[in-house]
Amino acid sequence: MTGTNGVSNGTNGATGDRFDPDFTRHVIENIGPATPDRPRFVLSSLIKHLHDFIREVELTPEEWMTGVQFINSIGQISTAKRNEGQRICDVLGIESLVDEVANKFMLDSDENPTSSTILGPFWSPHAPFRELGDTIVQDPYPDGKVAYMHGVVTDAKTGEPIPNTIVDIWQASSNGQYDFQDDNQSVNNLRGKFRTNEKGEYYYYCYHPTAYSLPTDGPAGKLLKLLDRHPMRPAHIHLMVSADGYKSVTTQLFPRDDPYASTDTVFAVKDDLLLDFKPSTDPKAQLDLEYNISLARLKAGQPAPFLHTVF
Amino acid sequence: MTGTNGVSNGTNGATGDRFDPDFTRHVIENIGPATPDRPRFVLSSLIKHLHDFIREVELTPEEWMTGVQFINSIGQISTAKRNEGQRICDVLGIESLVDEVANKFMLDSDENPTSSTILGPFWSPHAPFRELGDTIVQDPYPDGKVAYMHGVVTDAKTGEPIPNTIVDIWQASSNGQYDFQDDNQSVNNLRGKFRTNEKGEYYYYCYHPTAYSLPTDGPAGKLLKLLDRHPMRPAHIHLMVSADGYKSVTTQLFPRDDPYASTDTVFAVKDDLLLDFKPSTDPKAQLDLEYNISLARLKAGQPAPFLHTVF
Repeated sequence: MTGTNGVSNGTNGATGDRFDPDFTRHVIENIGPATPDRPRFVLSSLIKHLHDFIREVELTPEEWMTGVQFINSIGQISTAKRNEGQRICDVLGIESLVDEVANKFMLDSDENPTSSTILGPFWSPHAPFRELGDTIVQDPYPDGKVAYMHGVVTDAKTGEPIPNTIVDIWQASSNGQYDFQDDNQSVNNLRGKFRTNEKGEYYYYCYHPTAYSLPTDGPAGKLLKLLDRHPMRPAHIHLMVSADGYKSVTTQLFPRDDPYASTDTVFAVKDDLLLDFKPSTDPKAQLDLEYNISLARLKAGQPAPFLHTVF
Repeated sequence: MTGTNGVSNGTNGATGDRFDPDFTRHVIENIGPATPDRPRFVLSSLIKHLHDFIREVELTPEEWMTGVQFINSIGQISTAKRNEGQRICDVLGIESLVDEVANKFMLDSDENPTSSTILGPFWSPHAPFRELGDTIVQDPYPDGKVAYMHGVVTDAKTGEPIPNTIVDIWQASSNGQYDFQDDNQSVNNLRGKFRTNEKGEYYYYCYHPTAYSLPTDGPAGKLLKLLDRHPMRPAHIHLMVSADGYKSVTTQLFPRDDPYASTDTVFAVKDDLLLDFKPSTDPKAQLDLEYNISLARLKAGQPAPFLHTVF
C-alpha cells in the first residue's frame, strides 16, 4: 500500500494482497516529464515485466544476488571482439525474437520473401567487394569442402531479377572459427561482398559450413550448463542481402542434415532455410549449392534497411 | 508456427497470429532434463517475461542492441568495491521488491516487527564490535552533527527485551561518502557492531545522516538521466539486527523531513522508517534519536537469517 506521498507503508501481510499492489506503479510513475514517449513506454514495460517475474517466482535474495553477479560477469568478459551480452540474448532466444518482430512489422501478408534470421556477433562492416566467380576461401583449411554457391535474386512480388544487389557472405572455417577468433586466419578470410549481374545472378566459391560451439568459457557457457543444453550451432552460411528500393534481408542457410538443426542453441533455424548441398561437376568444387533469394520492395516512406543504421 | 521438429517455419504473417505463438514455448522446452526444478521454474519464467516484454513493445533491433551494449557496460565499470549491477537493480526498484518478497514470505500476518528495507552495496562483513556508549565516528567531518542513538530491542509477539542482540550500523559521512569510497576516511569509519545489554538496550554515538547522490558516472547515471530522475538517496542510517532464534532485519532509518524521502531513487523508504531527530541534552551530542526495534521469532524449521548466507 502507498501513502499520499507515494511511499510504501511497509505493512507486512496486513491486507489480503500478498504483495504491495502499488509498488510497481510507484516506480513507473517516478519517470520524469522529460523522458520521451518511446523510452517511457519501453522502460515502463520492462519494469513491469521484471517485477512480475520476481513476484511470480518469489525470487530469493540469494537468487537475485546470483543474477547480479552474473550480469556483472557479462561485461567483464566482453571485448571489442567478444560481445557476451549479445550471446546471452541469443541463448535465451532474444535476438531471434527481435528479428521476428522487426520483420513481421515490415512485411505485408501477401509477400513471401526469403526469411530473415539473426545477424549474430560475427558480421563485419569491412568485408571486401569481390568479383563474381571468386572464392572467399583465402586460407584453405585441410578438411574444408569447397562449394559452388549460386542463385538469382528476384522481386518477391513480380519475380523480376534484381541486378546490382549486394550479397554479403560470411562463414566460419572448417575448424568452426571465424577470422575474428583465429590468429591463423587472415583478416576477411571467408568474407566477401558480391554484386548480382544484369540477370540478378550471383555465384562464388565458399566452404560447406561446419557446426561449432559457442565459446563456453564465460557466462553463456554457465547459462547453457544450468539449462542443460548443448552449446552447438548447426553449420551455417551467413548472408546479408541488400538492393536499392528493397528491404534488406539478413539470414543464415543450414545443411538440412545437420544434427543440430532442430536444437540450434540460438534458435535461428527456420524450415525454408534448410538446404541440400549436392555433388558438383565443377572441378573447382566438391559440392554445389543453388539458392535463390527473394526481396520485398520498400513501401513509400518506409525507412531504409535497419541493419546498416545499427552497426 | 513450429514443425514436427520444433523448428519455426518462418512463415511471415500467413496466420492470424501477429507473432509465432510457439516460439517462447520452444525455447523453454529446450531446457534439458538435468536442470533442477527451481532453476527450471525461475529461468522459464524469466524467458517468458522477457519475450512478452519484447513482443509488447515491439522492441526494435536498434533498441535491443542499445540494451546489449548497456548490459555489457554494467560489468565493465564494476569492481570489487563497485557493484553497478546491484545499483541498476536498485534504480529499477528490484532490490526493494526482492526484499519485500523475502520478508512477506517469512512473516506471519499477526506479527508486526520492524520493517526491512534494502541492504544496498555498502555493508561490510568486517565492521568491528564496539562497546555500548562508544562512537562510530572515527574521522570527524567539519559539519558532521553527532547524534546519540538509543533504543530497546524486543520480541515482536511478547514485547520482552532481547539481550545479546547484534546491532550492526553503517552510514555515509557528512560528505555523503562511505569509507569504501573516500580515501580520506579510515577503514570502518562510521561502522560498528554493538550487543544489547541484559535489558535489550543499545546506545552509541553516530552522525545525523546526509543525503547523497548515487555515482552518476556509469550506467546507473545514464539510466537515471533517461528516466528523467534525480540520483539522490534521502539521508539514512543502515541497520542490520540479528539475535539467536529471531529473523534478522536489515533496514534503513530516514529523517522525516528529508527532501528526498518521497522520491528515494532506490525506493527503500517505508512510512515506519521515517524518524524525528530531537535536540539533545547530552553534551557529547547535538541530536537525540530514540529507535526501538522489534524482531519476529524464527519458526521451527525456518532457515537462519538469509543475509548472512549471501554475503
